[in-house]
Amino acid sequence: MPRLVAEEKVEHEEEFRVGRLLPSFEWIKKAWRPSEDDLLSYSGLDAVVFMRIFTFGLRVFRFAVIVGILILLPFNYAGNQLSIDFSDLPNKSLESFSISNVDDGSNRLWIHFCAIYIFTAVVCYLLYIEFDYIASKRIAFFYSSKPKPDQFTVLVRSIPITPERSFSESVESYFSEYYPSSYLSHSMVRRTGKLRGLVNKADKAYKKLVHLKSKNDEQQRYTRSGCLGLCGRRIDLEEYEKSLEDMEHNVMTERSAIVGKEVAAAFVSFKSRLTAATVIHVQQRLKPTEWVTEQAPDPQDIYWPFFSSLFFTKWLSNIAVIVAWICITLLFFIPVAFVQGLANLDQLERWFPFLKGLVEMKVVSQVVTGYLPSLVLDLVQSLVPPVMILLSSIQGYIAFSKIEKSACIKLLWFTIWNVFFANVLSGTALYNAEIFLEPKNVPAILAVAVPGQASFFISYVVTSGWTKIFSAKLFRLKPLIWSYVKGILCCNSDEEHEVPSNPYHSEIPKILFFILLGITYFFLAPLILPFVLVYFCFGYIVYRNQLFNVYKPKFETGGKFWTVVHDATIFALILMHIIAIGIFGLKKVPIASSATIPLPILTLIFNSYCRRRFLPSFRGYPAECLINKDRMDENDPSTSSFFDELGTAYRDPAVKSRRDSRRSESSDSPLLDRYNV
Amino acid sequence: MPRLVAEEKVEHEEEFRVGRLLPSFEWIKKAWRPSEDDLLSYSGLDAVVFMRIFTFGLRVFRFAVIVGILILLPFNYAGNQLSIDFSDLPNKSLESFSISNVDDGSNRLWIHFCAIYIFTAVVCYLLYIEFDYIASKRIAFFYSSKPKPDQFTVLVRSIPITPERSFSESVESYFSEYYPSSYLSHSMVRRTGKLRGLVNKADKAYKKLVHLKSKNDEQQRYTRSGCLGLCGRRIDLEEYEKSLEDMEHNVMTERSAIVGKEVAAAFVSFKSRLTAATVIHVQQRLKPTEWVTEQAPDPQDIYWPFFSSLFFTKWLSNIAVIVAWICITLLFFIPVAFVQGLANLDQLERWFPFLKGLVEMKVVSQVVTGYLPSLVLDLVQSLVPPVMILLSSIQGYIAFSKIEKSACIKLLWFTIWNVFFANVLSGTALYNAEIFLEPKNVPAILAVAVPGQASFFISYVVTSGWTKIFSAKLFRLKPLIWSYVKGILCCNSDEEHEVPSNPYHSEIPKILFFILLGITYFFLAPLILPFVLVYFCFGYIVYRNQLFNVYKPKFETGGKFWTVVHDATIFALILMHIIAIGIFGLKKVPIASSATIPLPILTLIFNSYCRRRFLPSFRGYPAECLINKDRMDENDPSTSSFFDELGTAYRDPAVKSRRDSRRSESSDSPLLDRYNV
Repeated sequence: MPRLVAEEKVEHEEEFRVGRLLPSFEWIKKAWRPSEDDLLSYSGLDAVVFMRIFTFGLRVFRFAVIVGILILLPFNYAGNQLSIDFSDLPNKSLESFSISNVDDGSNRLWIHFCAIYIFTAVVCYLLYIEFDYIASKRIAFFYSSKPKPDQFTVLVRSIPITPERSFSESVESYFSEYYPSSYLSHSMVRRTGKLRGLVNKADKAYKKLVHLKSKNDEQQRYTRSGCLGLCGRRIDLEEYEKSLEDMEHNVMTERSAIVGKEVAAAFVSFKSRLTAATVIHVQQRLKPTEWVTEQAPDPQDIYWPFFSSLFFTKWLSNIAVIVAWICITLLFFIPVAFVQGLANLDQLERWFPFLKGLVEMKVVSQVVTGYLPSLVLDLVQSLVPPVMILLSSIQGYIAFSKIEKSACIKLLWFTIWNVFFANVLSGTALYNAEIFLEPKNVPAILAVAVPGQASFFISYVVTSGWTKIFSAKLFRLKPLIWSYVKGILCCNSDEEHEVPSNPYHSEIPKILFFILLGITYFFLAPLILPFVLVYFCFGYIVYRNQLFNVYKPKFETGGKFWTVVHDATIFALILMHIIAIGIFGLKKVPIASSATIPLPILTLIFNSYCRRRFLPSFRGYPAECLINKDRMDENDPSTSSFFDELGTAYRDPAVKSRRDSRRSESSDSPLLDRYNV
Repeated sequence: MPRLVAEEKVEHEEEFRVGRLLPSFEWIKKAWRPSEDDLLSYSGLDAVVFMRIFTFGLRVFRFAVIVGILILLPFNYAGNQLSIDFSDLPNKSLESFSISNVDDGSNRLWIHFCAIYIFTAVVCYLLYIEFDYIASKRIAFFYSSKPKPDQFTVLVRSIPITPERSFSESVESYFSEYYPSSYLSHSMVRRTGKLRGLVNKADKAYKKLVHLKSKNDEQQRYTRSGCLGLCGRRIDLEEYEKSLEDMEHNVMTERSAIVGKEVAAAFVSFKSRLTAATVIHVQQRLKPTEWVTEQAPDPQDIYWPFFSSLFFTKWLSNIAVIVAWICITLLFFIPVAFVQGLANLDQLERWFPFLKGLVEMKVVSQVVTGYLPSLVLDLVQSLVPPVMILLSSIQGYIAFSKIEKSACIKLLWFTIWNVFFANVLSGTALYNAEIFLEPKNVPAILAVAVPGQASFFISYVVTSGWTKIFSAKLFRLKPLIWSYVKGILCCNSDEEHEVPSNPYHSEIPKILFFILLGITYFFLAPLILPFVLVYFCFGYIVYRNQLFNVYKPKFETGGKFWTVVHDATIFALILMHIIAIGIFGLKKVPIASSATIPLPILTLIFNSYCRRRFLPSFRGYPAECLINKDRMDENDPSTSSFFDELGTAYRDPAVKSRRDSRRSESSDSPLLDRYNV
């Protein structure tokens, strides 16, 4: 429970009790009790929106389970399309509950048809009220928030080079000329890559020095950290201090040099939120590609390293990243095909004949077909989120929150393509991408391929959804082992606990994928629905616990992640419709097949309405709110001190040495004071 | 020359001279002489942009003719792919100049390959500088313009219903509360459909009365109008006056009733352009679908009848119109297929066996194959623009300019689909729409079909481009005959001349279609290029004359039509690339075929850059300009009187009786004064 530890709600020195390692169900109660408002005040709106995904999932699948299990399942089972091979019953038992078992041309398929229409209507209704709810929450959150620097600040990029004056001067002159009444100040962005490297190096060296000193002077530290610190190397302290001084000198020279290294970008702060919004929304200068304005992120949220300031380079890197992402997404199916090969033992035998003996052992075959595919998939998948984060950061987003949102979208499509489509299609046909060049055939191909993978996805929900994610999250085994190993190897165990933030970019796509599975298999194989419902029940409790006890919000987007959820659900619905069109065609009910065609069109129209209705509220705040907030501030005496701070809020942390929180907190040694000039 | 007549530059009573009917080339000199600035001051920026289409076309096809005729044509002719059937030479002579004549797998195709790359680069370069030029013109035009009501005014739609107060009160209270310093006034939109009908009826009756009176009292009018006015019916004047008085009474009661018929929309005027821009660009109230703001059009530009004020109805009618437009566009191919059937005489014989004897006559066959197809096409096509205008007006656009632009885009795609694709494909295969469901086969199908229609399109350029459009436009035969016929039938010959405005919505798609033809056939059949070039030479002169002498601008969009030209050219380039990919595949040069694939992608990337670079300038004006203009106004003494007028500028013409220009101009009779209460 890193967050509680960090906030010192749980005493650090609490004695080790074996009982604490045993499972207890106390936490469920604890996680259940707090209301949504508590969560909002404790972890911000993003956490609330994150939990709304589970609420939404629970509502959707509660309805789906009722319809699917009580109505569709009996009809599927009563069919006898597959009853010819009764000898093969154990293998086919799952499929006898699926739509494959309904007779061709049977009138019972009209029940499926109605179920699809009703289910779509219900999901759309739930989507609408959820979007509405979150949009209103977002405004309420804005009203209740304290004045924050990002509300008053605009990031200006692509400031053109003028021969006679510097970037800073041209920003100053433009904004003080055109917005004289509300322009407050600006701070230029500087090229601090080298400085940041030096500072980090010096920082590390300093920490090591402090650590070494502490080991020499204060022996009681050993007991507290409870680690194998004895195996550390002994280095001459004086030598160390000298090299640190050198570094310090480098930092200072670099810091003085940095002032000239201005980048064509600046954070411009205003005295009113409305002016900031005007500057953001109204094109400023003649060329739309120069003086590009956008909402500044929160100062803590800024990602400094990949700061691309020019419109053209940002645009180019954007295109390059999209191309790279498409390549990664499309070519990733090679390992997936391999995994799928493991599930199809026959294929494995064909590919690797030497494995034949091994494969024919019963235990091996069970393990291989049952668990290995999901495990390998998960393993490979866990490598992907960092790659996506990297791609998104190259794309030129300025804030962690934007990088995570972009990575979230990338990862979502990656997951859908590589887990859903690659699995579905590689079992049937290996020519994945090509079939999408002939859109006419897509429904038929999907209709053949998707129902066949129902049992695989049920096992995927269990292995990937139930066991792996929650146990790993809840007990945080990985970080525990990792910190233990690090403690042994580097003797750095007295490093402060870093409180993790919720990795939205990797969590949301996983959850959305289960929504996709549930919706797609809703009428194909209703047997998957209870598993998905249980997943969402588990998830609701577990993630509430995580958000209260483990994670600490790193940024606050004001619920912008919900748009991803909405789009993914719409996509899932349309995928279901396409499969339905194919299935009804295969089952020889062509009228039902054609009658399903309006459904995706209606869903898309609904989606476009939702986008018009809600999306603008997620891009910015309405003028009404901005003006009201501005007026509230006018009557607030603390505003003037806030404006004083605003001027320096957007300095690069590498440049503003004094304000670097981590170091200044523990600055009690004279060396540190000297170092922090 | 209606505009000159209306502006009384040409004396009306000038004696009829036979010489004036004879062709003279004086006008060419006259049309050539004025500079672009003259045109700008005389007919506005839209006229300049319209002429830039011709300048652009001339530049593109000057280059294309040089490359096509001097380089590609000889290579095509030197090939001997088609030389097998020398007996059929006259028929095939055109094709021997086309790419079909190049040998399969010949290395000469690499010359075509290079030509495509170079041509694309040149066209993109020209597009870029043209876009840049027009964007800068647009800003300059804005700077030089006088204060206009639309610059200060915002149209607010979808004002929600509140029980306690009227729409007008809620507009007043919102804007005076949130924009107290710059809010000036507002005028509500009212439901005036019935009133407008009554006013028009009374207007007509009044005109007739004046006409009858003039015939009785002032006999000299006969000579002036020079028409067969004697055949008019005699009606008792007193009876007529009485019915007019009734109408007048109706108008007055309706006008007093109209005040209550407020619609949820208002024109809100501000004292500064920047505030208006802020209100437009920043979402105003909590719900994005309420208080929807947009730039108000010029008061003369407003199209009152289809004023849909609610977001939801506008959104729905938008979707309905798009669906209707797609249906019209797709189903229109039936007459086109028939026309194409006429061109393929064999097919005609097959369809209508009884025509066999007729068709085999030489004259008939020549007429049928030569001219009839183009003529029928043009005839049917001339019915389409009004339909598109109707569709666009239902869509809920508030201004004539927007309706015309939207109709222009609709008509463009209509033309491309129904003239280009339907002709190209119906000759080869009748299953038009279906092939686009299999994108993989599109290049190959187009590569087979498009070159075959080269001779048809050459004749289309000549009949449709050269002869018909220009002769009809220049001599304005149709309006002349029409007004003559009307004069005979209705005795309304003393009606004022109505100066026509340039029908951009029907002219621009035609011109763009020739650009499309020229670009698409550039490497397929370079023989078409001189014809297209001549078309643009003609067009340049003729339309200059039209813009100076015939048309009077009805509205001013500030060059927004250029975006349509840009998009159409990009589409033409990509179409050419797709055909090239197919052709190189057919001609067995697969490497060239694959090497062409990056070209459309690069073109699209170029297009997306252009959109980012220029499009924002076409949506609004930058803050810099707005603030500068506002400051200029502050020093201008005439501004206060302008603001006084601004308050009443946005009244519905049916409501503001006094200011209705047409009637008040000629209000010298006491009846008229009474009628115009």
